[in-house]
Amino acid sequence: MNQADWMETAPGVWKTTIGNPIGLTPLTWMNRVPKLEAMQRMKSGLPLKWEDIRLEKGDRTVLSFPLEHAEAVYGMGLQFMKMDQRGRTRYLRVNSDPKQDTGETHAPVPFFVSDRGYGVLIDSASIVTIYCGSAVRLEDAGRGAARDRNIDREWKATPVSSRIEIRIPNDGVHAYLIAGPTLADAVRRYNLFCGGGALPPKWGLGFWHRVPTLFDQQEVLEEALAFRRRNFPCDVIGLEPGWHSRSYPVTNEWDQERYPKPASMLQTLSAQGFRVNLWEQPYLSPDSELYEGLKPLSGSHTVWGGLAPDYTLPQAQEMYKRQHKKRHVDIGVSGYKLDECDGSELTRHSWMFPAHAHFPSGHDGEQIRQLYGLLFQKMTDDMFREQNLRTYGLVRASGTGASSMPYVLYSDLYDHRQFVRALCNASFSGLLWTPEVRKADNAEDWVRRMQTVCFSPMALLNGWGDGTKPWSFPEVEHIIRHYLRLRMRLLPYLYTAFAQYHFEGIPPFRAMPFEGNSGEREKSVFDDHHRVTDTTDGAYGRRGGREWDDQYMVGDALLVAPLFAGESEREVLLPPGIWYGLETGERYDGGGTIAVRAELERIPVFVREGSVIPMMPATAHVPKYGEKVPLQMVHFGNSDGAGLLYDDDGETFEYEHDQKYQWWKTLVRKTSEGEFHGELVGSEKSMVSYSKVEWCLGQSKLPN
Amino acid sequence: MNQADWMETAPGVWKTTIGNPIGLTPLTWMNRVPKLEAMQRMKSGLPLKWEDIRLEKGDRTVLSFPLEHAEAVYGMGLQFMKMDQRGRTRYLRVNSDPKQDTGETHAPVPFFVSDRGYGVLIDSASIVTIYCGSAVRLEDAGRGAARDRNIDREWKATPVSSRIEIRIPNDGVHAYLIAGPTLADAVRRYNLFCGGGALPPKWGLGFWHRVPTLFDQQEVLEEALAFRRRNFPCDVIGLEPGWHSRSYPVTNEWDQERYPKPASMLQTLSAQGFRVNLWEQPYLSPDSELYEGLKPLSGSHTVWGGLAPDYTLPQAQEMYKRQHKKRHVDIGVSGYKLDECDGSELTRHSWMFPAHAHFPSGHDGEQIRQLYGLLFQKMTDDMFREQNLRTYGLVRASGTGASSMPYVLYSDLYDHRQFVRALCNASFSGLLWTPEVRKADNAEDWVRRMQTVCFSPMALLNGWGDGTKPWSFPEVEHIIRHYLRLRMRLLPYLYTAFAQYHFEGIPPFRAMPFEGNSGEREKSVFDDHHRVTDTTDGAYGRRGGREWDDQYMVGDALLVAPLFAGESEREVLLPPGIWYGLETGERYDGGGTIAVRAELERIPVFVREGSVIPMMPATAHVPKYGEKVPLQMVHFGNSDGAGLLYDDDGETFEYEHDQKYQWWKTLVRKTSEGEFHGELVGSEKSMVSYSKVEWCLGQSKLPN
Repeated sequence: MNQADWMETAPGVWKTTIGNPIGLTPLTWMNRVPKLEAMQRMKSGLPLKWEDIRLEKGDRTVLSFPLEHAEAVYGMGLQFMKMDQRGRTRYLRVNSDPKQDTGETHAPVPFFVSDRGYGVLIDSASIVTIYCGSAVRLEDAGRGAARDRNIDREWKATPVSSRIEIRIPNDGVHAYLIAGPTLADAVRRYNLFCGGGALPPKWGLGFWHRVPTLFDQQEVLEEALAFRRRNFPCDVIGLEPGWHSRSYPVTNEWDQERYPKPASMLQTLSAQGFRVNLWEQPYLSPDSELYEGLKPLSGSHTVWGGLAPDYTLPQAQEMYKRQHKKRHVDIGVSGYKLDECDGSELTRHSWMFPAHAHFPSGHDGEQIRQLYGLLFQKMTDDMFREQNLRTYGLVRASGTGASSMPYVLYSDLYDHRQFVRALCNASFSGLLWTPEVRKADNAEDWVRRMQTVCFSPMALLNGWGDGTKPWSFPEVEHIIRHYLRLRMRLLPYLYTAFAQYHFEGIPPFRAMPFEGNSGEREKSVFDDHHRVTDTTDGAYGRRGGREWDDQYMVGDALLVAPLFAGESEREVLLPPGIWYGLETGERYDGGGTIAVRAELERIPVFVREGSVIPMMPATAHVPKYGEKVPLQMVHFGNSDGAGLLYDDDGETFEYEHDQKYQWWKTLVRKTSEGEFHGELVGSEKSMVSYSKVEWCLGQSKLPN
Repeated sequence: MNQADWMETAPGVWKTTIGNPIGLTPLTWMNRVPKLEAMQRMKSGLPLKWEDIRLEKGDRTVLSFPLEHAEAVYGMGLQFMKMDQRGRTRYLRVNSDPKQDTGETHAPVPFFVSDRGYGVLIDSASIVTIYCGSAVRLEDAGRGAARDRNIDREWKATPVSSRIEIRIPNDGVHAYLIAGPTLADAVRRYNLFCGGGALPPKWGLGFWHRVPTLFDQQEVLEEALAFRRRNFPCDVIGLEPGWHSRSYPVTNEWDQERYPKPASMLQTLSAQGFRVNLWEQPYLSPDSELYEGLKPLSGSHTVWGGLAPDYTLPQAQEMYKRQHKKRHVDIGVSGYKLDECDGSELTRHSWMFPAHAHFPSGHDGEQIRQLYGLLFQKMTDDMFREQNLRTYGLVRASGTGASSMPYVLYSDLYDHRQFVRALCNASFSGLLWTPEVRKADNAEDWVRRMQTVCFSPMALLNGWGDGTKPWSFPEVEHIIRHYLRLRMRLLPYLYTAFAQYHFEGIPPFRAMPFEGNSGEREKSVFDDHHRVTDTTDGAYGRRGGREWDDQYMVGDALLVAPLFAGESEREVLLPPGIWYGLETGERYDGGGTIAVRAELERIPVFVREGSVIPMMPATAHVPKYGEKVPLQMVHFGNSDGAGLLYDDDGETFEYEHDQKYQWWKTLVRKTSEGEFHGELVGSEKSMVSYSKVEWCLGQSKLPN
């Protein structure tokens, strides 16, 4: 292709249209305004030549990009098995059960970023397949690509390809080329192009607890109050299917026996500082008040005997929003958990409308399934926006253009390592993921997972099935309490990180490749992979090599390196500079790997020297707007420090409408006397959330 | 639809063409003549009304069939997870790694049989998706299909659908409706329509052993002779990748260092009664003599740096066959193991040309991948046919219309139970499967798997990776020897069963549903599935219920119920009648389940009363044509008996060309004196393979 084929549609974002894309696409559905000013402020760099991009039209149209030998490719949405997607074929279909590494996932996103420093996005409601260097062209075959497996130890099951090939769906797509100059810049630009990252209400960053499914109103109140009595912070109580008068399919109406007075329950909870989040799923019960109205606006096939409404239709959206506003939001519900919008075809359970289902809007089952998670996120977010209220919730399916959606992906199908990998991978694609905790095999596993979830986009314990609570393992209750309280103390820091996501596109939780390469890429992922052929169990050999997919950044200052059950030490890759153990005070030289040991009481978290971390006391729940708490500014290390602090009302969209928000720069300087001095550039006087500022300077560990 | 939409193209087979199918289809490629006479002799019955078949045309054309509440649906090719496919969505793509139950497999076949007694076949080179009652129509929603999962224990993760829906590939397909009246009849008719089942050469039914990959000529000879020395029968020695001068991709040429004189090695082996089978794969090395010639006839993408030739082109076929004939067949090679024609996209290894690859014939990568296994089977079978020699071999991908192909599917990815289930499921789709043995966890697992493989289409031990041999576990060597020898003794019986496959379409190895239901279907598979909701590990509940997918029929007389490591007893479902333990003599009443116990020495095998099993001595290898051995006719039980015996030259196609074959009916009658008398109806005099006939009448167990 050449430059004329691409039109710069936003700073550093070029668009081309291939074929005649029809119907909705994720970006047109989300309809977000790119944050152009922020994009404009960014440096821009494109490491590609236009002529190295190829478009081959035909029955099977292919858009392809060059791959360097050592290039790594990240993204493609919520991938669970691997971070670098090089060498993989990604079939980007929404699927609830991506147990095999096909690319299918709850949240596939046909957006990749290369560590050369650029990204490519395909905007389509159809399934896109991307061959990330897994397809090798005949014209590359001469390059000594073939090896003799009989005798050559360097033989590889996946040969190195020089192209990343994107199979374009039949009707066509809009494709976007997104500039760097770094991988981190390309991701930021993607997030900004999609409207900026989500800024949750402050309460969303507190602790979340979901109660057992058939709890009644009285049991919910008792469980909530137990948190207060036992001194565990909690902001959100989640109700599970039993709040519905019918579930699977659902009515979205309160069960009158278990919940005779939902409004009064919500009031009582609110008085105790709790928000309420309601589970739901898309499929509408014949007993629902909306059934007859939505039936003509629904797909040709049912799920669990319920309607699959076509919410691309404004009329269907209106019915959904009217019901939800009246029955939930008006009486105080704060958000939703949008379950089962992903679909499954497995042995034990198979449920979803088929790909050939037809919907009144003209879309088919494949398209609606690809879009379903986005439809619900947008509808509910719109509904709360209309009330000038922010929401924060859970969703099990997402996709392209979801950066601005205040939703966190979840599922309990995975193990602790996959949870952490998903948290890392989500950061490449404008997604958030919670490694929610349900039951655990033992106290150790429980603690390790609870520690991780406290350093995630949503600190969530889900007791829907078996009623676990933070005090379920009494012998380690104190550890859990400690980390729930630490989460609360970090709220100003976490909220600032999300503000950077919203305004600057910087993901609050980030995989290690965002930290850049120390210099040039020296080795290919392939060079790292030692071939070990076990000819009976692994006929094509195994790959070795270490991906740093088990640790991540939280904001700019913190690096979290979870431990997993059965371990009390691990390797950590520390970026260049000096680092401190957040709770140990131990000092480390970065720029390589270290070994760290931590007993069950501690999750290894590291602070970058010079960071200034804004903190607050561990309140039982996030303070309401106007309730002031002291602010503690913790500066780490022995050199000058800098940081940011963001604040707003924490609940409404005033920060968008009227720019009612505040940024402070925090500066720490060593005086000529050798003492540190801290300063909030902006004005302490204008603070609404904080009563006073306490500076803790030159620390090597967190003050108690 | 109505009857006029369908044309009877063979007795009991109706065809309709949907859309404008282009290019090759599996049936046109296989180009087999239906066995019309045999089909004509069958009873025919169609339990459907024509108007209950629906064709909905549109962007996504769907052909659908009614489903009764309790109807079971079998087939779809080599499925590993389940026998009854009801409730599943089958995405019938060729895939080497069907670890998740999507329908993908080495050998997908869009052919299902209903236990109502009919079958449907879709003939297409594209991927077909079949919703086997997993898609529920809106118009069915009124039937009380929705349940309240909150309180209703009968809630099911997969609701019951009233239609089986087939998504027709875009260009169109040929669809065939295949009459019963029973499930067994529908499968027979399918096999006969595809040209009848494979009749392997007799030597193919002996024992097979594959040697380690880098063995040289001398090591091969030594390993082969060890079988003779140690008194283990063996007919076929298989060579693995190391016989190629280059492998992965391959040259198909002998490595001159390891195999300096292949012709003389083959002669020596032949003199000892061994055949040789060569491993190969499709992808052609740049070092191959065929590379330059096949390059312009190959696909746009390479695999492991090798060409993916377009063997739908006659010119490419000719080059392949000419090379193989000259280098292998002319010096005595008897067949091939056709590996890696299936493709994989996984974390650890990803190799295949992409779906969008283009081939000189105009086919794309999806079509060629779907066809690849069939292309190689047909080309090699044709090549041996041209020499008037039968072959028998292994293949890792297959599909529609392969009944007549002398190839057995294999892969080592599965566990013992899956191996047995695949053996059962293969029988619904004109496929053969070997639960080949490689290494084992322990002697017990080893024995159990070796016992099973001796009652399978190919008794194969594959030592390519770790060099296992039948005597690898000395403590159980005598058990292995016993079953290898029993396999040899059963040769006349097994060969007759394959002849029934060839001439009558009756699979030699059959899943239990072929035995029919004792009367009407009383229960749905759904009724059997108890819902056990484990809300954290299995959010959608688990299915209980017992499928008899771990036992199978061999011919008409034997029922094999393997034991699995860790077990010494099991339940067995015995069809109505009286049965005997083949080696124990114990008597059982059929028509229900029994419990059976067997120590490691025994695999539970049962004989139907009245069976007459033709046997021979346990020779070291299958006798050559004209070498006579005694025939032992073993009659079981206390009532009159009947059976069949088939014979021919065992090696050539004379049985087809000149009808040079013989069938005997075996009859056993009780005389008025109360003694049994056996008779071979036909003539003992005309026997070529057998020197004399010994009758063992009224047995309850196998004579030693």
